[in-house]
Amino acid sequence: MAVAHLGHAEIRVTDLERSRWFFTEVLGLYVTEENDERIFLRAWQDWDHHTLILMRSDHAGIEHVGWRVETPEDMGAYEKQLKELGIEYRWIEGGTEPGQGDGLRFLTPGGMPFELYWEIERFAPQGNLQKEDDSLASALPSHPWKYPSRGIGPRRFDHVNFLTDDPGTEQEWMTRELGIHHRYYAENSDGDRMASWLSRNNLSHEIAVQRNKNQNGALLHHVAYFVDSPDQMMRAATILADNGIEIEWGPGQHGTSGAIFLYCFEPSGNRVEVWTGGFLIFAPDWEPIRWTPDIAPLGYELWGSEMPDTYLTYGTESHFTAVPQRSVSTPG
Amino acid sequence: MAVAHLGHAEIRVTDLERSRWFFTEVLGLYVTEENDERIFLRAWQDWDHHTLILMRSDHAGIEHVGWRVETPEDMGAYEKQLKELGIEYRWIEGGTEPGQGDGLRFLTPGGMPFELYWEIERFAPQGNLQKEDDSLASALPSHPWKYPSRGIGPRRFDHVNFLTDDPGTEQEWMTRELGIHHRYYAENSDGDRMASWLSRNNLSHEIAVQRNKNQNGALLHHVAYFVDSPDQMMRAATILADNGIEIEWGPGQHGTSGAIFLYCFEPSGNRVEVWTGGFLIFAPDWEPIRWTPDIAPLGYELWGSEMPDTYLTYGTESHFTAVPQRSVSTPG
Amino acid sequence: MAVAHLGHAEIRVTDLERSRWFFTEVLGLYVTEENDERIFLRAWQDWDHHTLILMRSDHAGIEHVGWRVETPEDMGAYEKQLKELGIEYRWIEGGTEPGQGDGLRFLTPGGMPFELYWEIERFAPQGNLQKEDDSLASALPSHPWKYPSRGIGPRRFDHVNFLTDDPGTEQEWMTRELGIHHRYYAENSDGDRMASWLSRNNLSHEIAVQRNKNQNGALLHHVAYFVDSPDQMMRAATILADNGIEIEWGPGQHGTSGAIFLYCFEPSGNRVEVWTGGFLIFAPDWEPIRWTPDIAPLGYELWGSEMPDTYLTYGTESHFTAVPQRSVSTPG
Amino acid sequence: MAVAHLGHAEIRVTDLERSRWFFTEVLGLYVTEENDERIFLRAWQDWDHHTLILMRSDHAGIEHVGWRVETPEDMGAYEKQLKELGIEYRWIEGGTEPGQGDGLRFLTPGGMPFELYWEIERFAPQGNLQKEDDSLASALPSHPWKYPSRGIGPRRFDHVNFLTDDPGTEQEWMTRELGIHHRYYAENSDGDRMASWLSRNNLSHEIAVQRNKNQNGALLHHVAYFVDSPDQMMRAATILADNGIEIEWGPGQHGTSGAIFLYCFEPSGNRVEVWTGGFLIFAPDWEPIRWTPDIAPLGYELWGSEMPDTYLTYGTESHFTAVPQRSVSTPG
Repeated sequence: MAVAHLGHAEIRVTDLERSRWFFTEVLGLYVTEENDERIFLRAWQDWDHHTLILMRSDHAGIEHVGWRVETPEDMGAYEKQLKELGIEYRWIEGGTEPGQGDGLRFLTPGGMPFELYWEIERFAPQGNLQKEDDSLASALPSHPWKYPSRGIGPRRFDHVNFLTDDPGTEQEWMTRELGIHHRYYAENSDGDRMASWLSRNNLSHEIAVQRNKNQNGALLHHVAYFVDSPDQMMRAATILADNGIEIEWGPGQHGTSGAIFLYCFEPSGNRVEVWTGGFLIFAPDWEPIRWTPDIAPLGYELWGSEMPDTYLTYGTESHFTAVPQRSVSTPG
Repeated sequence: MAVAHLGHAEIRVTDLERSRWFFTEVLGLYVTEENDERIFLRAWQDWDHHTLILMRSDHAGIEHVGWRVETPEDMGAYEKQLKELGIEYRWIEGGTEPGQGDGLRFLTPGGMPFELYWEIERFAPQGNLQKEDDSLASALPSHPWKYPSRGIGPRRFDHVNFLTDDPGTEQEWMTRELGIHHRYYAENSDGDRMASWLSRNNLSHEIAVQRNKNQNGALLHHVAYFVDSPDQMMRAATILADNGIEIEWGPGQHGTSGAIFLYCFEPSGNRVEVWTGGFLIFAPDWEPIRWTPDIAPLGYELWGSEMPDTYLTYGTESHFTAVPQRSVSTPG
Repeated sequence: MAVAHLGHAEIRVTDLERSRWFFTEVLGLYVTEENDERIFLRAWQDWDHHTLILMRSDHAGIEHVGWRVETPEDMGAYEKQLKELGIEYRWIEGGTEPGQGDGLRFLTPGGMPFELYWEIERFAPQGNLQKEDDSLASALPSHPWKYPSRGIGPRRFDHVNFLTDDPGTEQEWMTRELGIHHRYYAENSDGDRMASWLSRNNLSHEIAVQRNKNQNGALLHHVAYFVDSPDQMMRAATILADNGIEIEWGPGQHGTSGAIFLYCFEPSGNRVEVWTGGFLIFAPDWEPIRWTPDIAPLGYELWGSEMPDTYLTYGTESHFTAVPQRSVSTPG
Repeated sequence: MAVAHLGHAEIRVTDLERSRWFFTEVLGLYVTEENDERIFLRAWQDWDHHTLILMRSDHAGIEHVGWRVETPEDMGAYEKQLKELGIEYRWIEGGTEPGQGDGLRFLTPGGMPFELYWEIERFAPQGNLQKEDDSLASALPSHPWKYPSRGIGPRRFDHVNFLTDDPGTEQEWMTRELGIHHRYYAENSDGDRMASWLSRNNLSHEIAVQRNKNQNGALLHHVAYFVDSPDQMMRAATILADNGIEIEWGPGQHGTSGAIFLYCFEPSGNRVEVWTGGFLIFAPDWEPIRWTPDIAPLGYELWGSEMPDTYLTYGTESHFTAVPQRSVSTPG
């Protein structure tokens, strides 16, 4: 048993209107639905009802990340497993999150707020168009939405990244309990784990955990959306700059994955990555690639630009409102 | 004395609203100003008040193309020259075309409706923003408008292309009378001129004349806008396709210039080219490149796609309302 | 039990030297090793010993395609399964193909020559460099070979495509027996299956089967390599054209997958695709997308270029020297 | 009278072999001819015999930059003008530089080593192929050399950049004496000129002069070659990194011109820029754009990466062996 893939993230935003502007007009996501408290977004070729949720809050942060399981039966099996592991969890009833079935929420040992779920509504323009402009529906059955001509226009949701106190332990837990493969990692000169990148699917990673320099628990490092080409990355950078959005780092290239990246901050302060390219992993016996300190700088940025200090220290709060933070107790 | 560069084109459209939609929402041009009869458009980094004018009409076609002269004094000198050549002309008083000074209009011997002008208002967001959304003004003095995140978003106006009965004669006239350099040409196996490409500036061409297979005079073949990269050409093709705009030909590559192209038809029937790349010409003693029939197919399309029949036959009417068509008489 | 992923293809070439030139100098693959009869090639970031084998022959064709299994134990299990299905097979002893362990070869019901294998040597520059130029070794552990600056330079092997008499039956067999998911398909107006695209991993497809118009069995339609961007596709087209390689179709965009493609013929006559982009499929409950005749033309080519006649009829022979063609008998 | 365009640069290199490797294998230029002391290079679509000369030396630096004049008669007229200005000059006899006619060399008031020339051999593969591999000749009359599939493969030479003590004076001299238009400039908060960019042709600049922080005369800042697209810039960065060439800055975007850039150091220490995109200038009455300190950082780099300290201080020596450095005396 293993999760199927990373499905979505819910982030907290302090300025819902400005963040909405950023994610729709600048980044170019589309609203599936929204209410006073939350906005449900997806990229133009995200097939699911949502891949990002903006939640109105008094601080920036991550509310939860959702992993889809492989079969409906796995939901119960995971509940049993969490019990056995002594990890507190909570069921979110289907429909509480629009477009989604029952969710099983818990914190990882290191404090990352995870959700497992099976049911998710497939986005259908005809089903949702009463709320949106039907000029965006495409004639193509492979286009859940027209090819975007607004903003940066990423194709799909890609991955999340957390700062955690102990990335090695966190990686081992995800690999052992959720079947998420370990793909590559960085060590310092003492052999301590500095970061790990993992994926269940063929992406080079769906989740990364990086050592939190301040050792103050799990923080959201960033959420990432995928654009189609290096050229669109350059276009993205120019759109961001001309809209006054600060680019923290990039465009650069991660030598680890070969992906081209940029990081910026959305108006509420969460870090967002625009990402493209890089390799896919098909081998069933993949050996995680080790990045030692002598070569790791090229792993982080192949082209040689300097990593900003904030990259290793800044994150936004990791939350899980439904469960007391970091409490780990055996229910029942 | 020579013209400075091609500045704009005025085309006739039968469905002003649909053509406006195409040129703004799909192609991604911006409106400087408009009235019931005309819409004045420019690409985001066109510095002039307009580079394209849509004119409401009962048929598609080209109303005129405007060449900027090099100095204010050249306007009078060209009037004198036209008189000496026995070419009928007409003055369009400054302000008749918004943002523009006096225009001198005439038909070339082959019937292309040309305008010469000196004064043109430089587009300034602050000056025109009462009519437009000021969120499009950029902080950069090099950006007359924000980098586009709407539609295809070309950077600038590029060139025009006409079908004419005798492209060789037309080329010689433009080179001799207007100083527009001959850059490359195609011949058939009898040595007849099939097409010529000319520019006054460093572009591979600002105007092309192709042999009209039907020998029924000058027709507009297309107007062209420049996008920044091959990747944006692919993006353009997908935006067009997903908006139901027929692509006549391309993306392909002209072996003649090295430019990557696609041709489509705007809703009123005029052909529009999206164009990128290719070489620039700096040599003051450039020798026009000759494309003989054995190699010319690669000149038209290097990658090997077949030229559609319409490419050599379809054009929209060439007009010049202010002057009787094709009449050539000595005034005075 | 299911295969893990498509690993390589062996094609027959009539002019080994010219085909070697094409695949190394023009396409930009690298030789891992070679002998008088075979050349073992991989793209710069293919991790395995080979993804393409050129086999000297008196005709062009496909010798076999290799699917990697998920665990070593699966090899025996598949042998048992083939026996039960009454499908003749043959073991290829480890080392017969350099860099590879035991292979289990058989023909699918429609005649496609498949191989299953587990062991494959991971390409290591240091291990193979006695045979190659060590200037190609990269300092990066994520680069099995330096980033290419020769030829088209694809990143990796992508997929294969066959013409078969009955693509529906063939798809069902692969899905049922090998666990290869059905991703999208085309039907004619009678509801007959015209083509199906399948993958075990997240690619939109690893193998496609298209209806053979001539109904003369399984033929290789093409093998495909992946380049990093639309821009590199354009670059590829120009490199091909300037080296006198005929492009059969493209660059175009498959509306089905969103991938950008071109097809060309290598000097021995096998069709090769250069491919980039398109969507990945993560959903464990993916429903195959149906392309009906009204929309299928956009599925084949979104931008509107015409499919050449050869596309539906031309293939190179499907072989399997080790097993009598199409014989299906129960061994033992 | 004005120069026609910037034609070439001659740089001094301390390690001719390593610099040759960089410019041919990594950057992807081609050798037209070479001898023990000099290597004559051009990009694949440079039409002239050479656009870059490597000169063996005991230090890195710039030997001269060559400006082509507009007519043969201008050579004599410029000699007269230099005399009147009291600027020492020297004739380099035709043929001294292979492929080139008489050259008139002098130092600008600020010490930049300029050459004026009219005659330059047009590169013809058939004429030079005895020295080179004829597999690089293209069938296309528009391709002086096949489209490159080696190294970065820029299309053409673009511009040069100098550090000088007083860029304002230098700009005024070039504009007044050589007719090179002033395109944009940067000022500090005291209104002092920090940099100016100039071109005679439609490029945003062919030469730039930046204030030398160390006030020790004219130094070569960089020579620049043009690649076709942002995507190829990313490819260039990866090729450089994987070949161990340090990238000083970039990829980034100059907000001034809109061009995308990277700077690196060739093995002998001269800075080289890879450059793409940006605007062209057609207006005959262009007003230089002023970049004030509040916005200038975005002018230097729109995406927000920090300018390295070396960018304002490091240059390689400016030379002119044929004339005593900086001496300005009236001949005769």
